[in-house]
Amino acid sequence: MADSVRIIKVKQSVLANNDARAEKLRNELKERGVFLINVMSSPGSGKTTLLVNLINRLKKELKIGVMEADMDAIVDTQTIKEKTGVPAIQIHTSGECHLDAKMVNESVDGIEGDFDLLILENIGNLVCPAEFDTGASLNLVLLSIPEGDDKPLKYPLMFRVGNAFVFTKMDAKVVFDFDVELAKDHIRKLNPNAVFFPVSAKTGEGMEELASYILNSVKEYKAK
Amino acid sequence: MADSVRIIKVKQSVLANNDARAEKLRNELKERGVFLINVMSSPGSGKTTLLVNLINRLKKELKIGVMEADMDAIVDTQTIKEKTGVPAIQIHTSGECHLDAKMVNESVDGIEGDFDLLILENIGNLVCPAEFDTGASLNLVLLSIPEGDDKPLKYPLMFRVGNAFVFTKMDAKVVFDFDVELAKDHIRKLNPNAVFFPVSAKTGEGMEELASYILNSVKEYKAK
Repeated sequence: MADSVRIIKVKQSVLANNDARAEKLRNELKERGVFLINVMSSPGSGKTTLLVNLINRLKKELKIGVMEADMDAIVDTQTIKEKTGVPAIQIHTSGECHLDAKMVNESVDGIEGDFDLLILENIGNLVCPAEFDTGASLNLVLLSIPEGDDKPLKYPLMFRVGNAFVFTKMDAKVVFDFDVELAKDHIRKLNPNAVFFPVSAKTGEGMEELASYILNSVKEYKAK
Repeated sequence: MADSVRIIKVKQSVLANNDARAEKLRNELKERGVFLINVMSSPGSGKTTLLVNLINRLKKELKIGVMEADMDAIVDTQTIKEKTGVPAIQIHTSGECHLDAKMVNESVDGIEGDFDLLILENIGNLVCPAEFDTGASLNLVLLSIPEGDDKPLKYPLMFRVGNAFVFTKMDAKVVFDFDVELAKDHIRKLNPNAVFFPVSAKTGEGMEELASYILNSVKEYKAK
Protein backbone atom coordinates (compact mmCIF):
# COMPACT_ATOMS: atom_id res chain seq x y z
CA MET A 1 0.00 0.00 0.00
CA ALA A 2 2.67 2.46 1.06
CA ASP A 3 4.06 3.20 -2.36
CA SER A 4 0.58 3.80 -3.77
CA VAL A 5 0.07 6.61 -1.32
CA ARG A 6 0.80 9.93 -2.88
CA ILE A 7 3.20 11.95 -0.80
CA ILE A 8 3.19 15.70 -0.99
CA LYS A 9 6.11 17.08 0.90
CA VAL A 10 5.71 20.53 2.33
CA LYS A 11 8.56 22.56 3.60
CA GLN A 12 9.62 22.48 7.20
CA SER A 13 9.53 25.69 9.15
CA VAL A 14 12.83 26.96 10.34
CA LEU A 15 13.06 26.49 14.09
CA ALA A 16 14.73 29.16 16.15
CA ASN A 17 18.02 28.03 17.59
CA ASN A 18 16.95 27.40 21.09
CA ASP A 19 19.49 24.78 22.15
CA ALA A 20 22.28 26.96 23.51
CA ARG A 21 19.89 28.87 25.74
CA ALA A 22 18.34 25.65 27.04
CA GLU A 23 21.77 24.23 27.86
CA LYS A 24 22.68 27.40 29.74
CA LEU A 25 19.49 27.23 31.78
CA ARG A 26 20.08 23.53 32.51
CA ASN A 27 23.57 24.34 33.82
CA GLU A 28 22.27 27.18 36.01
CA LEU A 29 19.58 24.97 37.48
CA LYS A 30 22.15 22.24 38.13
CA GLU A 31 24.31 24.70 40.09
CA ARG A 32 21.31 25.72 42.16
CA GLY A 33 20.31 22.08 42.72
CA VAL A 34 16.90 22.52 41.08
CA PHE A 35 15.54 19.59 39.08
CA LEU A 36 13.25 20.71 36.26
CA ILE A 37 10.65 18.37 34.77
CA ASN A 38 8.93 19.25 31.50
CA VAL A 39 5.52 17.55 31.29
CA MET A 40 4.12 17.12 27.78
CA SER A 41 1.05 15.44 26.26
CA SER A 42 -2.04 15.95 24.12
CA PRO A 43 -4.80 18.18 25.45
CA GLY A 44 -6.92 16.28 27.93
CA SER A 45 -4.41 13.51 28.69
CA GLY A 46 -4.64 14.27 32.38
CA LYS A 47 -1.50 16.33 33.06
CA THR A 48 -2.99 18.50 35.81
CA THR A 49 -4.80 15.64 37.55
CA LEU A 50 -1.61 13.57 37.50
CA LEU A 51 0.43 16.47 38.89
CA VAL A 52 -1.97 17.08 41.78
CA ASN A 53 -1.74 13.41 42.78
CA LEU A 54 2.04 13.30 42.33
CA ILE A 55 2.78 16.54 44.19
CA ASN A 56 0.69 15.46 47.17
CA ARG A 57 2.83 12.30 47.38
CA LEU A 58 6.13 14.22 47.13
CA LYS A 59 5.62 17.56 48.83
CA LYS A 60 6.76 16.40 52.28
CA GLU A 61 10.12 15.30 50.93
CA LEU A 62 10.74 17.93 48.27
CA LYS A 63 10.21 21.68 47.93
CA ILE A 64 8.11 21.84 44.78
CA GLY A 65 7.04 24.68 42.50
CA VAL A 66 4.82 24.49 39.43
CA MET A 67 4.79 26.54 36.24
CA GLU A 68 1.61 26.09 34.25
CA ALA A 69 1.63 27.03 30.60
CA ASP A 70 -1.65 27.84 28.97
CA MET A 71 -2.56 29.81 25.94
CA ASP A 72 -5.18 31.77 27.75
CA ALA A 73 -6.78 30.15 30.79
CA ILE A 74 -5.67 30.12 34.42
CA VAL A 75 -7.74 27.17 35.63
CA ASP A 76 -4.81 24.75 35.96
CA THR A 77 -2.78 27.08 38.16
CA GLN A 78 -5.79 27.55 40.43
CA THR A 79 -6.31 23.79 40.60
CA ILE A 80 -2.68 23.13 41.53
CA LYS A 81 -2.67 25.83 44.23
CA GLU A 82 -5.97 24.77 45.74
CA LYS A 83 -5.37 21.03 45.70
CA THR A 84 -1.68 20.86 46.66
CA GLY A 85 -0.80 24.17 48.36
CA VAL A 86 2.53 24.42 46.55
CA PRO A 87 3.54 27.65 44.77
CA ALA A 88 2.35 27.82 41.19
CA ILE A 89 2.56 30.47 38.51
CA GLN A 90 0.90 30.84 35.17
CA ILE A 91 2.77 31.26 31.90
CA HIS A 92 0.51 32.76 29.27
CA THR A 93 1.80 32.05 25.80
CA SER A 94 -0.81 34.26 24.08
CA GLY A 95 -1.61 31.64 21.49
CA GLU A 96 1.87 30.11 21.09
CA CYS A 97 1.73 26.34 20.88
CA HIS A 98 4.90 25.62 22.84
CA LEU A 99 7.35 26.97 25.38
CA ASP A 100 10.93 27.76 24.42
CA ALA A 101 13.94 28.03 26.73
CA LYS A 102 13.64 31.82 26.92
CA MET A 103 10.05 31.66 28.20
CA VAL A 104 11.00 28.96 30.68
CA ASN A 105 13.99 30.98 31.88
CA GLU A 106 11.74 33.99 32.52
CA SER A 107 9.30 31.77 34.37
CA VAL A 108 12.02 30.19 36.52
CA ASP A 109 13.11 33.71 37.44
CA GLY A 110 9.50 34.64 38.12
CA ILE A 111 8.59 31.92 40.62
CA GLU A 112 9.73 32.91 44.09
CA GLY A 113 11.17 30.35 46.49
CA ASP A 114 13.86 27.76 46.99
CA PHE A 115 12.98 24.58 45.16
CA ASP A 116 14.25 21.03 44.82
CA LEU A 117 11.83 20.33 42.02
CA LEU A 118 10.24 22.63 39.48
CA ILE A 119 7.52 21.16 37.30
CA LEU A 120 6.67 22.74 33.98
CA GLU A 121 3.29 21.80 32.51
CA ASN A 122 3.73 22.49 28.83
CA ILE A 123 0.94 23.36 26.36
CA GLY A 124 -1.26 20.35 25.52
CA ASN A 125 0.18 19.45 22.14
CA LEU A 126 2.14 16.48 20.74
CA VAL A 127 3.89 18.50 18.04
CA CYS A 128 5.47 21.87 18.82
CA PRO A 129 6.59 21.33 22.44
CA ALA A 130 8.73 18.38 21.27
CA GLU A 131 10.77 20.68 19.05
CA PHE A 132 11.94 23.04 21.76
CA ASP A 133 14.40 22.05 24.46
CA THR A 134 13.15 23.81 27.60
CA GLY A 135 16.30 23.26 29.68
CA ALA A 136 14.58 20.51 31.68
CA SER A 137 16.50 17.54 33.07
CA LEU A 138 13.58 15.19 32.51
CA ASN A 139 10.93 15.12 29.79
CA LEU A 140 7.87 13.35 31.13
CA VAL A 141 5.44 12.44 28.35
CA LEU A 142 1.87 11.35 29.04
CA LEU A 143 -0.20 9.21 26.70
CA SER A 144 -3.75 8.51 27.81
CA ILE A 145 -5.48 5.21 27.10
CA PRO A 146 -8.34 6.79 25.08
CA GLU A 147 -5.86 8.37 22.63
CA GLY A 148 -4.79 4.98 21.29
CA ASP A 149 -1.59 2.94 21.19
CA ASP A 150 -0.69 4.22 17.68
CA LYS A 151 0.23 7.75 18.75
CA PRO A 152 4.01 7.06 18.88
CA LEU A 153 3.81 6.21 15.15
CA LYS A 154 2.09 9.47 14.34
CA TYR A 155 3.98 11.89 16.58
CA PRO A 156 7.43 10.27 16.61
CA LEU A 157 9.45 13.30 17.69
CA MET A 158 7.56 13.59 20.98
CA PHE A 159 8.26 9.96 21.75
CA ARG A 160 11.91 10.38 20.80
CA VAL A 161 12.55 13.38 23.09
CA GLY A 162 10.73 11.92 26.10
CA ASN A 163 12.68 10.21 28.90
CA ALA A 164 9.84 8.68 30.91
CA PHE A 165 6.40 7.80 29.58
CA VAL A 166 3.24 7.69 31.64
CA PHE A 167 0.21 5.83 30.31
CA THR A 168 -2.64 7.70 32.02
CA LYS A 169 -6.31 6.83 32.61
CA MET A 170 -5.51 3.11 32.92
CA ASP A 171 -8.94 2.76 34.57
CA ALA A 172 -10.44 3.46 31.11
CA LYS A 173 -8.99 0.27 29.65
CA VAL A 174 -12.37 -1.38 30.18
CA VAL A 175 -13.80 0.61 27.26
CA PHE A 176 -10.78 1.19 25.03
CA ASP A 177 -8.57 -1.18 23.05
CA PHE A 178 -5.14 0.03 24.06
CA ASP A 179 -2.32 -2.51 23.97
CA VAL A 180 0.21 -1.32 26.56
CA GLU A 181 2.92 -3.71 25.36
CA LEU A 182 2.42 -2.61 21.76
CA ALA A 183 2.66 1.05 22.79
CA LYS A 184 5.90 0.28 24.67
CA ASP A 185 7.28 -1.48 21.59
CA HIS A 186 6.44 1.49 19.35
CA ILE A 187 8.18 3.84 21.79
CA ARG A 188 11.24 1.61 22.33
CA LYS A 189 11.86 1.57 18.59
CA LEU A 190 12.18 5.36 18.69
CA ASN A 191 13.75 5.53 22.11
CA PRO A 192 15.55 2.44 23.48
CA ASN A 193 16.10 3.96 26.95
CA ALA A 194 12.47 4.83 27.60
CA VAL A 195 10.94 3.93 30.96
CA PHE A 196 7.21 3.39 31.45
CA PHE A 197 4.60 4.00 34.11
CA PRO A 198 1.02 2.80 33.54
CA VAL A 199 -1.09 4.76 36.04
CA SER A 200 -4.54 5.91 37.02
CA ALA A 201 -4.63 9.10 39.05
CA LYS A 202 -8.26 8.25 39.76
CA THR A 203 -7.68 4.83 41.38
CA GLY A 204 -4.07 5.44 42.42
CA GLU A 205 -2.78 2.50 40.34
CA GLY A 206 0.92 2.90 39.56
CA MET A 207 1.21 6.32 41.23
CA GLU A 208 3.53 5.16 44.01
CA GLU A 209 6.01 3.76 41.45
CA LEU A 210 5.95 7.02 39.51
CA ALA A 211 6.43 9.10 42.68
CA SER A 212 9.40 6.93 43.73
CA TYR A 213 10.97 7.29 40.31
CA ILE A 214 10.69 11.09 40.48
CA LEU A 215 11.97 11.22 44.07
CA ASN A 216 14.97 9.04 43.22
CA SER A 217 15.73 11.06 40.11
CA VAL A 218 15.79 14.28 42.13
CA LYS A 219 17.96 12.74 44.86
CA GLU A 220 20.49 11.35 42.36
CA TYR A 221 20.58 14.70 40.57
CA LYS A 222 21.27 16.63 43.77
CA ALA A 223 23.88 14.10 44.97
CA LYS A 224 26.04 14.39 41.85
CA MET B 1 -8.20 33.51 43.10
CA ALA B 2 -7.66 34.89 39.62
CA ASP B 3 -5.84 38.06 40.64
CA SER B 4 -3.46 36.12 42.89
CA VAL B 5 -2.26 34.16 39.92
CA ARG B 6 0.90 35.59 38.55
CA ILE B 7 0.67 36.14 34.85
CA ILE B 8 3.77 36.13 32.73
CA LYS B 9 2.96 37.29 29.27
CA VAL B 10 5.15 36.04 26.52
CA LYS B 11 5.17 37.45 23.07
CA GLN B 12 2.94 36.13 20.36
CA SER B 13 4.55 34.72 17.26
CA VAL B 14 3.90 36.65 14.12
CA LEU B 15 1.59 34.61 11.95
CA ALA B 16 2.13 34.61 8.22
CA ASN B 17 -0.61 36.40 6.39
CA ASN B 18 -2.47 33.47 5.07
CA ASP B 19 -5.94 34.93 4.75
CA ALA B 20 -5.84 36.30 1.20
CA ARG B 21 -4.63 32.97 -0.16
CA ALA B 22 -7.30 31.06 1.74
CA GLU B 23 -10.02 33.36 0.42
CA LYS B 24 -8.76 32.89 -3.14
CA LEU B 25 -8.83 29.09 -2.74
CA ARG B 26 -12.32 29.25 -1.25
CA ASN B 27 -13.54 31.23 -4.28
CA GLU B 28 -11.93 28.81 -6.73
CA LEU B 29 -13.51 25.82 -4.99
CA LYS B 30 -16.88 27.59 -5.00
CA GLU B 31 -16.66 28.07 -8.76
CA ARG B 32 -15.86 24.39 -9.22
CA GLY B 33 -18.68 23.37 -6.87
CA VAL B 34 -16.33 21.60 -4.45
CA PHE B 35 -17.20 21.81 -0.74
CA LEU B 36 -14.10 21.63 1.46
CA ILE B 37 -14.32 20.51 5.10
CA ASN B 38 -11.39 21.06 7.46
CA VAL B 39 -11.48 18.50 10.30
CA MET B 40 -9.58 19.49 13.44
CA SER B 41 -9.09 18.00 16.91
CA SER B 42 -6.55 16.80 19.48
CA PRO B 43 -4.49 13.72 18.66
CA GLY B 44 -6.54 10.58 19.28
CA SER B 45 -9.95 12.23 19.25
CA GLY B 46 -11.12 9.83 16.58
CA LYS B 47 -10.90 11.86 13.36
CA THR B 48 -10.04 8.95 11.05
CA THR B 49 -12.56 6.54 12.60
CA LEU B 50 -15.28 9.19 12.31
CA LEU B 51 -14.38 9.91 8.68
CA VAL B 52 -14.51 6.24 7.69
CA ASN B 53 -18.00 5.93 9.17
CA LEU B 54 -19.16 9.24 7.66
CA ILE B 55 -17.76 8.61 4.17
CA ASN B 56 -19.40 5.19 3.99
CA ARG B 57 -22.74 6.87 4.73
CA LEU B 58 -22.24 9.61 2.10
CA LYS B 59 -20.25 8.07 -0.74
CA LYS B 60 -23.29 6.95 -2.75
CA GLU B 61 -24.64 10.48 -2.89
CA LEU B 62 -21.45 12.52 -3.12
CA LYS B 63 -18.12 12.19 -4.92
CA ILE B 64 -15.69 12.38 -2.03
CA GLY B 65 -11.92 12.80 -1.79
CA VAL B 66 -9.78 12.86 1.35
CA MET B 67 -6.54 14.69 2.12
CA GLU B 68 -4.81 13.32 5.19
CA ALA B 69 -2.25 15.50 6.90
CA ASP B 70 0.34 13.84 9.05
CA MET B 71 3.75 14.88 10.19
CA ASP B 72 5.31 11.63 9.17
CA ALA B 73 3.04 8.57 9.03
CA ILE B 74 0.81 7.31 6.23
CA VAL B 75 -1.42 5.00 8.26
CA ASP B 76 -4.52 7.22 8.09
CA THR B 77 -4.46 7.46 4.30
CA GLN B 78 -4.18 3.67 4.06
CA THR B 79 -7.08 3.27 6.50
CA ILE B 80 -9.32 5.64 4.54
CA LYS B 81 -8.53 3.96 1.21
CA GLU B 82 -8.97 0.44 2.52
CA LYS B 83 -12.14 1.06 4.52
CA THR B 84 -14.03 3.44 2.20
CA GLY B 85 -12.56 3.02 -1.29
CA VAL B 86 -12.59 6.78 -1.96
CA PRO B 87 -9.48 8.55 -3.29
CA ALA B 88 -7.15 9.73 -0.55
CA ILE B 89 -3.77 11.43 -0.58
CA GLN B 90 -1.23 12.07 2.11
CA ILE B 91 0.08 15.52 2.99
CA HIS B 92 3.37 15.23 4.82
CA THR B 93 4.11 18.37 6.78
CA SER B 94 7.62 17.25 7.80
CA GLY B 95 7.08 18.22 11.40
CA GLU B 96 4.89 21.30 10.86
CA CYS B 97 2.04 21.43 13.35
CA HIS B 98 -0.59 22.81 11.00
CA LEU B 99 -1.65 23.20 7.40
CA ASP B 100 -1.77 26.61 5.76
CA ALA B 101 -3.74 27.65 2.67
CA LYS B 102 -0.72 27.18 0.40
CA MET B 103 -0.24 23.56 1.45
CA VAL B 104 -3.97 22.92 1.07
CA ASN B 105 -3.98 24.52 -2.38
CA GLU B 106 -1.13 22.25 -3.48
CA SER B 107 -2.99 19.25 -2.11
CA VAL B 108 -6.27 20.20 -3.82
CA ASP B 109 -4.30 20.43 -7.09
CA GLY B 110 -2.66 17.09 -6.29
CA ILE B 111 -5.75 14.95 -5.75
CA GLU B 112 -7.10 13.77 -9.09
CA GLY B 113 -10.82 13.54 -9.73
CA ASP B 114 -14.05 15.47 -9.82
CA PHE B 115 -15.37 15.97 -6.32
CA ASP B 116 -18.48 17.29 -4.57
CA LEU B 117 -16.78 17.04 -1.22
CA LEU B 118 -13.13 17.22 -0.23
CA ILE B 119 -12.29 16.40 3.37
CA LEU B 120 -9.08 17.64 4.90
CA GLU B 121 -7.94 15.84 8.06
CA ASN B 122 -5.69 18.39 9.73
CA ILE B 123 -2.81 17.59 12.12
CA GLY B 124 -4.04 16.45 15.56
CA ASN B 125 -3.55 19.66 17.51
CA LEU B 126 -5.89 22.16 19.21
CA VAL B 127 -3.53 25.10 18.82
CA CYS B 128 -1.78 25.78 15.50
CA PRO B 129 -4.41 24.54 13.03
CA ALA B 130 -6.91 27.04 14.48
CA GLU B 131 -4.67 29.94 13.48
CA PHE B 132 -4.52 29.18 9.77
CA ASP B 133 -7.52 29.57 7.47
CA THR B 134 -7.27 26.62 5.06
CA GLY B 135 -9.83 27.92 2.55
CA ALA B 136 -12.43 25.43 3.81
CA SER B 137 -16.15 26.23 3.79
CA LEU B 138 -16.73 24.31 7.00
CA ASN B 139 -14.52 23.81 10.03
CA LEU B 140 -15.54 20.59 11.77
CA VAL B 141 -14.05 20.35 15.27
CA LEU B 142 -14.03 17.09 17.25
CA LEU B 143 -13.85 16.91 21.03
CA SER B 144 -13.74 13.41 22.50
CA ILE B 145 -15.41 12.57 25.78
CA PRO B 146 -12.16 11.45 27.52
CA GLU B 147 -10.54 14.87 26.88
CA GLY B 148 -12.95 16.62 29.23
CA ASP B 149 -15.61 19.31 28.95
CA ASP B 150 -13.17 22.10 29.92
CA LYS B 151 -11.19 22.07 26.67
CA PRO B 152 -13.10 25.05 25.14
CA LEU B 153 -11.87 27.15 28.09
CA LYS B 154 -8.26 26.16 27.46
CA TYR B 155 -8.10 26.24 23.67
CA PRO B 156 -10.59 29.03 22.93
CA LEU B 157 -9.42 29.93 19.42
CA MET B 158 -10.18 26.43 18.13
CA PHE B 159 -13.70 26.64 19.51
CA ARG B 160 -14.14 30.12 18.04
CA VAL B 161 -13.12 29.17 14.49
CA GLY B 162 -15.16 25.94 14.39
CA ASN B 163 -18.57 25.88 12.73
CA ALA B 164 -19.81 22.46 13.78
CA PHE B 165 -18.67 20.51 16.84
CA VAL B 166 -18.71 16.75 17.16
CA PHE B 167 -18.49 15.17 20.61
CA THR B 168 -16.87 11.82 19.80
CA LYS B 169 -16.60 8.55 21.76
CA MET B 170 -19.97 9.10 23.43
CA ASP B 171 -19.88 5.38 24.30
CA ALA B 172 -17.08 6.24 26.77
CA LYS B 173 -19.41 8.38 28.90
CA VAL B 174 -19.81 5.41 31.26
CA VAL B 175 -16.28 5.95 32.57
CA PHE B 176 -15.74 9.70 32.13
CA ASP B 177 -17.42 12.71 33.70
CA PHE B 178 -18.14 14.82 30.66
CA ASP B 179 -21.07 17.21 30.87
CA VAL B 180 -22.30 17.64 27.28
CA GLU B 181 -24.54 20.60 28.16
CA LEU B 182 -21.68 22.33 29.98
CA ALA B 183 -19.36 21.80 27.01
CA LYS B 184 -22.03 23.28 24.72
CA ASP B 185 -22.38 26.29 27.02
CA HIS B 186 -18.60 26.87 27.03
CA ILE B 187 -18.55 26.72 23.23
CA ARG B 188 -21.65 28.90 22.73
CA LYS B 189 -20.03 31.66 24.79
CA LEU B 190 -17.17 31.74 22.28
CA ASN B 191 -19.28 30.93 19.28
CA PRO B 192 -23.03 31.65 19.41
CA ASN B 193 -23.77 29.96 16.04
CA ALA B 194 -22.13 26.65 16.90
CA VAL B 195 -24.02 23.45 16.09
CA PHE B 196 -23.40 20.17 17.95
CA PHE B 197 -23.35 16.45 17.18
CA PRO B 198 -22.78 13.98 20.02
CA VAL B 199 -21.74 10.74 18.31
CA SER B 200 -20.12 7.36 18.69
CA ALA B 201 -18.57 5.98 15.52
CA LYS B 202 -18.35 2.66 17.38
CA THR B 203 -22.07 2.27 18.16
CA GLY B 204 -23.36 4.53 15.36
CA GLU B 205 -25.08 6.88 17.82
CA GLY B 206 -25.65 10.30 16.24
CA MET B 207 -23.87 9.43 12.99
CA GLU B 208 -26.99 9.67 10.81
CA GLU B 209 -27.67 13.22 12.04
CA LEU B 210 -24.10 14.24 11.31
CA ALA B 211 -24.18 12.66 7.85
CA SER B 212 -27.46 14.48 7.04
CA TYR B 213 -26.00 17.77 8.18
CA ILE B 214 -22.97 17.33 5.92
CA LEU B 215 -25.10 16.21 2.96
CA ASN B 216 -27.45 19.19 3.34
CA SER B 217 -24.53 21.60 3.71
CA VAL B 218 -23.01 20.34 0.45
CA LYS B 219 -26.37 20.51 -1.37
CA GLU B 220 -27.06 24.06 -0.22
CA TYR B 221 -23.55 25.12 -1.18
CA LYS B 222 -23.85 23.68 -4.67
CA ALA B 223 -27.35 25.12 -5.19
CA LYS B 224 -26.30 28.69 -4.46
